[in-house]
Amino acid sequence: MTTQPKIGWIGPGIMGRPMCKHLMKAGFPLAIYARRPESAQELTDLGAKFYETPAALAANVDIVISMVSDTPDVEAVLLGRNGVIEGGKSGLLVVDMSTISPVTTREIATKLAEKGIRMLDAPVSGGDVGAIAATLTIMVGGNADDLAYARPALEVMGKTITHIGNHGAGQLAKACNQLIAAQTVIAVTEAFEMAKAANVDPAKIRAALLGGFAYSKVLELHGQRILDENFQPGFKAHLHNKDMHIVTDTIAAFGLNLPGTQRAADYMQALVDEGKGELDSSALAKIVQQKAKAI
Amino acid sequence: MTTQPKIGWIGPGIMGRPMCKHLMKAGFPLAIYARRPESAQELTDLGAKFYETPAALAANVDIVISMVSDTPDVEAVLLGRNGVIEGGKSGLLVVDMSTISPVTTREIATKLAEKGIRMLDAPVSGGDVGAIAATLTIMVGGNADDLAYARPALEVMGKTITHIGNHGAGQLAKACNQLIAAQTVIAVTEAFEMAKAANVDPAKIRAALLGGFAYSKVLELHGQRILDENFQPGFKAHLHNKDMHIVTDTIAAFGLNLPGTQRAADYMQALVDEGKGELDSSALAKIVQQKAKAI
Repeated sequence: MTTQPKIGWIGPGIMGRPMCKHLMKAGFPLAIYARRPESAQELTDLGAKFYETPAALAANVDIVISMVSDTPDVEAVLLGRNGVIEGGKSGLLVVDMSTISPVTTREIATKLAEKGIRMLDAPVSGGDVGAIAATLTIMVGGNADDLAYARPALEVMGKTITHIGNHGAGQLAKACNQLIAAQTVIAVTEAFEMAKAANVDPAKIRAALLGGFAYSKVLELHGQRILDENFQPGFKAHLHNKDMHIVTDTIAAFGLNLPGTQRAADYMQALVDEGKGELDSSALAKIVQQKAKAI
Repeated sequence: MTTQPKIGWIGPGIMGRPMCKHLMKAGFPLAIYARRPESAQELTDLGAKFYETPAALAANVDIVISMVSDTPDVEAVLLGRNGVIEGGKSGLLVVDMSTISPVTTREIATKLAEKGIRMLDAPVSGGDVGAIAATLTIMVGGNADDLAYARPALEVMGKTITHIGNHGAGQLAKACNQLIAAQTVIAVTEAFEMAKAANVDPAKIRAALLGGFAYSKVLELHGQRILDENFQPGFKAHLHNKDMHIVTDTIAAFGLNLPGTQRAADYMQALVDEGKGELDSSALAKIVQQKAKAI
């Protein structure tokens, strides 16, 4: 029997908690840091050790996994005062499972490497449902050896683990996922709007198109939500909006012009600006519907 | 044994010829009209009777099926001089399997109805491959009774036959299919461009995303064509461009503003304007790639 690496978890939120439970159940010794210690209560009750700072956590584990909200949060817990970089020994592996900027991810990896700390970016898709069911899709950037070391832990939390490329490549894949999903919602909703204007039942359109070349998961799942006008989340619009900002920042960093993606980002921002950020991200359809009537 | 209805076929082209053969094989008596009689040669050799005009054809059959290039062609063979309307008896059923304007389809159906001639619109997706394999998806608009009468013939040519709604609804569904497919090509290509700019292998992105929420047939099939830069048709860009004109005409007819669809139509026109109309329609990626570098 080999010894499981000790894991230090940063950010036991709605995604993190079920993921932590899978790790503990699989026998990984788990330590935790949380900005709000009460969010760690459930896990410390199960035996996870709590540390007061990311630095203290990092000093006592083999792998740090971060699962926090946004790019600045990851920078703070990894590179900031009392951050992982201050406590982590050379050889520590940091696995950032948050969804953040691919460009910043590369910068963080470089800074950690200067202290001998290794890093993988490993954002997920599948939401809290996937976290609970341990069916997350995990997209990984970084070195293959580091992924091999982390893989047993990742396999406890996810179903599909794909090594995309070097540092930031996992985040890049996640960004691609988000920009395609948002644009597909626009396409599907525009089709439905054309059908409605022509007095044709969009539900029949969806059903017919599911069997053909226009098939997408978005048509199948979000298409039904849009027909039902049921925007209970699911994946909240304000989170998809955050991800679309990552996308547009990335595009800007590389000097690209991607007009379809830019429009999808603008629509998602408009949805959030209307105070609908707590709805499912498929509520993007509402903006498409407003625009459709704009002439 | 019931008597099969006599079928008169207008337009034995690259799609029509294999469809006619399936009908003949299934025992339907077949007659043909073709603007260029030589295109009917193969079928008359097999025993199909040739008529010199659509009117003469219509006078001698129970069902007329039209499979021609574009809206004006359908108007010409159905409503024009020596057209079906001049020869068809009351009770004749016209099944237009061409891809044309939903709005014009409604007008044609109204004019034919004044002479007691019934009509279904029944455009297909699946291309010449689907026509040969008899696996076409057939989207039908018109009356349910008329579809019931035509269904045995349609079942010989297609795998999925969906009754969408009244006259024009089949064409509307096909138009939705085309606008979603074109926009999805743009979304997928923009994702690939972002990956390439970040020095991440777009093939890895495609592979990872196939298992998740960004999945679409376009990502799977056109995505691979785009990665391979293999734009052998397939479904030619100039035909998709024709279909996008149907889409934009339909949008205009209903006073809709669908910016994503409009951009997809503009890009497809740009592709054809560059002389690339004979490539597969997934070559739309080339326009996305040009735009991506435009700043």
